[in-house]
Amino acid sequence: MTYKELLDNAREYMKPHCMACPECNGKACGSVMPGPGSKGTGDGATRNYEAWKEIRVIMDTIHPLFEPDTSFDLFGMKMRYPVFAGPVGAVNMHYGDKYNDVEYNNILVKACADAGIAAFTGDGMFPEVVVAACEAIAKCNGCGIPTIKPWDTNPLKEKFKLVEQSKCSVVAMDIDAAGLPFLQNCDPPAGAKSVDELAEIIKMAGKPFIVKGVMTVKGAVKALEAGAKGIIVSNHGGRVLDQCPATAEVLPEIADAVGDDMMILVDGGIRSGVDVFKALALGADAVVIARPYVTALYGGAEEGVKFYTEKIGAELADTMKMCGAAKLSDISEEMIWW
Amino acid sequence: MTYKELLDNAREYMKPHCMACPECNGKACGSVMPGPGSKGTGDGATRNYEAWKEIRVIMDTIHPLFEPDTSFDLFGMKMRYPVFAGPVGAVNMHYGDKYNDVEYNNILVKACADAGIAAFTGDGMFPEVVVAACEAIAKCNGCGIPTIKPWDTNPLKEKFKLVEQSKCSVVAMDIDAAGLPFLQNCDPPAGAKSVDELAEIIKMAGKPFIVKGVMTVKGAVKALEAGAKGIIVSNHGGRVLDQCPATAEVLPEIADAVGDDMMILVDGGIRSGVDVFKALALGADAVVIARPYVTALYGGAEEGVKFYTEKIGAELADTMKMCGAAKLSDISEEMIWW
Amino acid sequence: MTYKELLDNAREYMKPHCMACPECNGKACGSVMPGPGSKGTGDGATRNYEAWKEIRVIMDTIHPLFEPDTSFDLFGMKMRYPVFAGPVGAVNMHYGDKYNDVEYNNILVKACADAGIAAFTGDGMFPEVVVAACEAIAKCNGCGIPTIKPWDTNPLKEKFKLVEQSKCSVVAMDIDAAGLPFLQNCDPPAGAKSVDELAEIIKMAGKPFIVKGVMTVKGAVKALEAGAKGIIVSNHGGRVLDQCPATAEVLPEIADAVGDDMMILVDGGIRSGVDVFKALALGADAVVIARPYVTALYGGAEEGVKFYTEKIGAELADTMKMCGAAKLSDISEEMIWW
Amino acid sequence: MTYKELLDNAREYMKPHCMACPECNGKACGSVMPGPGSKGTGDGATRNYEAWKEIRVIMDTIHPLFEPDTSFDLFGMKMRYPVFAGPVGAVNMHYGDKYNDVEYNNILVKACADAGIAAFTGDGMFPEVVVAACEAIAKCNGCGIPTIKPWDTNPLKEKFKLVEQSKCSVVAMDIDAAGLPFLQNCDPPAGAKSVDELAEIIKMAGKPFIVKGVMTVKGAVKALEAGAKGIIVSNHGGRVLDQCPATAEVLPEIADAVGDDMMILVDGGIRSGVDVFKALALGADAVVIARPYVTALYGGAEEGVKFYTEKIGAELADTMKMCGAAKLSDISEEMIWW
Repeated sequence: MTYKELLDNAREYMKPHCMACPECNGKACGSVMPGPGSKGTGDGATRNYEAWKEIRVIMDTIHPLFEPDTSFDLFGMKMRYPVFAGPVGAVNMHYGDKYNDVEYNNILVKACADAGIAAFTGDGMFPEVVVAACEAIAKCNGCGIPTIKPWDTNPLKEKFKLVEQSKCSVVAMDIDAAGLPFLQNCDPPAGAKSVDELAEIIKMAGKPFIVKGVMTVKGAVKALEAGAKGIIVSNHGGRVLDQCPATAEVLPEIADAVGDDMMILVDGGIRSGVDVFKALALGADAVVIARPYVTALYGGAEEGVKFYTEKIGAELADTMKMCGAAKLSDISEEMIWW
Repeated sequence: MTYKELLDNAREYMKPHCMACPECNGKACGSVMPGPGSKGTGDGATRNYEAWKEIRVIMDTIHPLFEPDTSFDLFGMKMRYPVFAGPVGAVNMHYGDKYNDVEYNNILVKACADAGIAAFTGDGMFPEVVVAACEAIAKCNGCGIPTIKPWDTNPLKEKFKLVEQSKCSVVAMDIDAAGLPFLQNCDPPAGAKSVDELAEIIKMAGKPFIVKGVMTVKGAVKALEAGAKGIIVSNHGGRVLDQCPATAEVLPEIADAVGDDMMILVDGGIRSGVDVFKALALGADAVVIARPYVTALYGGAEEGVKFYTEKIGAELADTMKMCGAAKLSDISEEMIWW
Repeated sequence: MTYKELLDNAREYMKPHCMACPECNGKACGSVMPGPGSKGTGDGATRNYEAWKEIRVIMDTIHPLFEPDTSFDLFGMKMRYPVFAGPVGAVNMHYGDKYNDVEYNNILVKACADAGIAAFTGDGMFPEVVVAACEAIAKCNGCGIPTIKPWDTNPLKEKFKLVEQSKCSVVAMDIDAAGLPFLQNCDPPAGAKSVDELAEIIKMAGKPFIVKGVMTVKGAVKALEAGAKGIIVSNHGGRVLDQCPATAEVLPEIADAVGDDMMILVDGGIRSGVDVFKALALGADAVVIARPYVTALYGGAEEGVKFYTEKIGAELADTMKMCGAAKLSDISEEMIWW
Repeated sequence: MTYKELLDNAREYMKPHCMACPECNGKACGSVMPGPGSKGTGDGATRNYEAWKEIRVIMDTIHPLFEPDTSFDLFGMKMRYPVFAGPVGAVNMHYGDKYNDVEYNNILVKACADAGIAAFTGDGMFPEVVVAACEAIAKCNGCGIPTIKPWDTNPLKEKFKLVEQSKCSVVAMDIDAAGLPFLQNCDPPAGAKSVDELAEIIKMAGKPFIVKGVMTVKGAVKALEAGAKGIIVSNHGGRVLDQCPATAEVLPEIADAVGDDMMILVDGGIRSGVDVFKALALGADAVVIARPYVTALYGGAEEGVKFYTEKIGAELADTMKMCGAAKLSDISEEMIWW
């Protein structure tokens, strides 16, 4: 299987929702929803993508020969690469009905675990999605990160029970889901949380907690105050608010501010191992990749997920060799040019 | 009705003058006049539009959940949103003969008032336009802002009598109309006004007075000296002078200089509630939107105006929720990225 | 006649050499020579054009109403506008054989004089071009500026005799013509001149002398040292050296350095009265426009030249009114934004 | 022969691998390999090319007339121009099977020597390539620079014996070849070298040694420490690591740091004599041009190489005349604008 064949195969199932572009950059889908597009003018995903391209890697091969160590540890989860598959919901609506969310997560969680990484699973309108996701994670001995929407306290209690049964070691909440239509008029209300509310939720979760959807130093500091052990610098791929900055544009100042105190993940337009290298050079500990994993799974199921993971991992290792970083912690800001 | 249907309907009446583009950005119309195009090379409207796109909003949903208060007060006029429909003249010539100016203003003024905002009405070659506009405003109990061209003193006296009868609480003058062909060879002469002349006019008007067409700190200070209570930072959508800067490019320094002393409105390329949010973050108190209201009215009459207003308002409220601004005065420069 | 009709007519005679584009920007002709294209990669003319577009004019109509005075005086030559038609040679080769250089200059010189401006005439391989150009200028009582190539001393003596007979009050030399192929292997050699050689030539000319083709402060200072009364900041429209900066990019520092001591003209991509205004705001005293005058002449002969001159002049006057400059010396750097 | 004819001829043999574009800029080939494309996203070659275009040359023809001296001396090799043909390997795979590496080098080395410059020869999977290249260089009395891959010590000893027989005065190693697939899993391992290993290799070579593939000051300093007499600032045309900066972007700081201590060459997107001039103005001593020499050779064999060399040389001489540089060492940073 080549990546082109994987994409060609995926395109058959996903079009016209997603065109499975050679490199997913938000241009072909634009602002079309349902579909993988961004909100409003639809330039959110494209800006994310292009911001990485303006950061360049500095080659230096005058160094001892080594095989790079790409392994990563997230609160005890041992991974081959600092790469996670991102949470996606309503896949049948946005990407085509070859899979529903339950089927999708079942494949994704296992395939990621087999490939040596882990998946974030999604949450949505239908409670069975989290039920099934947590079961899938449990089957993989907890390798996976359930991602819960910012519901009100009582629904959250129910969700966290499921999370507990998943045997996962980490849990996440996409706090920015406040901007999704289906969360806007919930009863009891869902959405934004104060620091105190978030602190209570994190306590309730009883596990290392990652807040997804932070785009500013102020937000990161609030997540830290609330007790989060990590954040994902994310604008939800442009799907919850139109015309955000790119994540690569805000990552450095956030990493500078709180990078010593918590785990920093980042998503948005990361498409290759070279991009992963850049994210780490800008201060991230690991990255989350969403849309390309959907394509990989639609195009090749378990095998597609494995293929894409190994592609990203090999590119990361190659970049580390070409820039002189023997292990992830060697990747430094002086290895990039921007 | 979807926005696409509204546009499709409008396009039938407006083509080839206006193509009712998915987002009005000055590209399809370019420099074609009659029509909605800009003067000269025609890049004025496009630059206005693109300048807003380079200003990005910073998402932060770690805050107490609230329903945003979007209400705005302009010299006693209570409005649901800090948004005005802009003054447009010679609509039949520039947008198609489905409506003439009198019919257009009659619909616009009432529809805006019903939608909780207010319209600026236009002025032109034919005296009956202002007569009818003022009558329309009077019927809405003064909800509307008559906008008078910079005529000579005697014609202005006549116009202000009409304004008085409109029961409006605010009046405006588009001082930059000096650049429109039909004002160039008037007898008595119309066009630019000295500070003293403007002061006399403002006194004559006897109401809070807004000067439209200010693009520099110096101009704003002169308007203030002349007694204006507000200005509209505007380059007339590129229609009075070719190759101005974008309004978003000059707004911040103008707002810094006179924002505490007068009301600052801005127009030019504002197309969504996200753009409204940005304008307020840069120091504006409210915004004026012109071309899209023409499209809304041609495409859906009263209902179109209502639809577009609610679309803009909902986008503004959504952006406020996603950025943590509970009321308009919470919107601050630290919520944008540029 | 509209400008579009003028261009349509010109295109018939000039294609495929020149496409008579709506606004002449060097893109359609690129690097094609013979033809109006630029040397090498052909981006010279385009960069000139685009640099002006990035300079914006600042509207301010709060000022006394006036009719702008656009008149200009060059060493005693009284002109309606600070605008010259540029020197062009081998028109039959580069623009089509409707005209040869003698015919072209005969029409251009008279039409410019009639329109209240003046033409620079070209020089070339064939001696009769300067002979005829000087006769044409003499017939217009010296209204025109013979532009002589940088030949060796003896040929120059002959040329200056012709210049003397033209009754002109100013003479010019395009010192950058060194980069034209036909000047490269002359015997005696033509091309670059030392300051001393140039000083001798200027003395020999016996009239106010303008050096065309200066792109740096250092070059301007050398022209001043040699006794030149003026320079034209010019890269010869990209035709003598590939990949120069745009003239608008280097004009400000040159004007700052020598603007008080000599007359500063500028050419390259100036296409409208708004551009003329910008050039003066950046420190130029007047501008030279070349390619569009060729198009105007091919498309409308005398009438075309008159039409284009009045178009440029009216745009300049309009811009002065909209920006508050009553006379040319009022145009200042604070009236532009860059 | 015109350059267009040369390209048309080359295209017949090279398509679809290489489209022999009017100016080779990496756009048509993108990321396609085998073929001349760049690695990964394929923007490496294009960025190299475009970076030179943003550096502009400053014309100044007020100076004594001279015939420029373009001669260059590399460790005793006397050359007409500061230009080298770059090393290319596996030409049949990447450019079409009209030639194999042995045939290609045989023609290139001799044609370059005849044209007054010198070629770097490539190295590859098959040992006979270096054998034949060294023989070709020997036939030209050592005019040529064998470029050896970063093999392990024992294979290198064999290579250096061949180098010795070539009578060359300089030898090079493309240390960045570590990023080529065929070097990745060698036994014994090939690729990156520590400073100590490199020092040992340089000592073993016993000749002035050039390290190709340096993109950072740190790398240049390490090459100097190891005893290299020169470096080539190069990202291997984008073929060993995706998304490097352009060579023109990093050249100035590298030249500032080590330019007084070693010979600085640069490659990547240099396509004309104007670009050569810019490279020297930024601190390089000479340039290396790769892809266009492949096209020249496929399109015109010996004659093509001669033609392209003279084209580049004439453009360089012309630029020197137009900017006032009589010899290479006169070319200074104040002659460019960036």
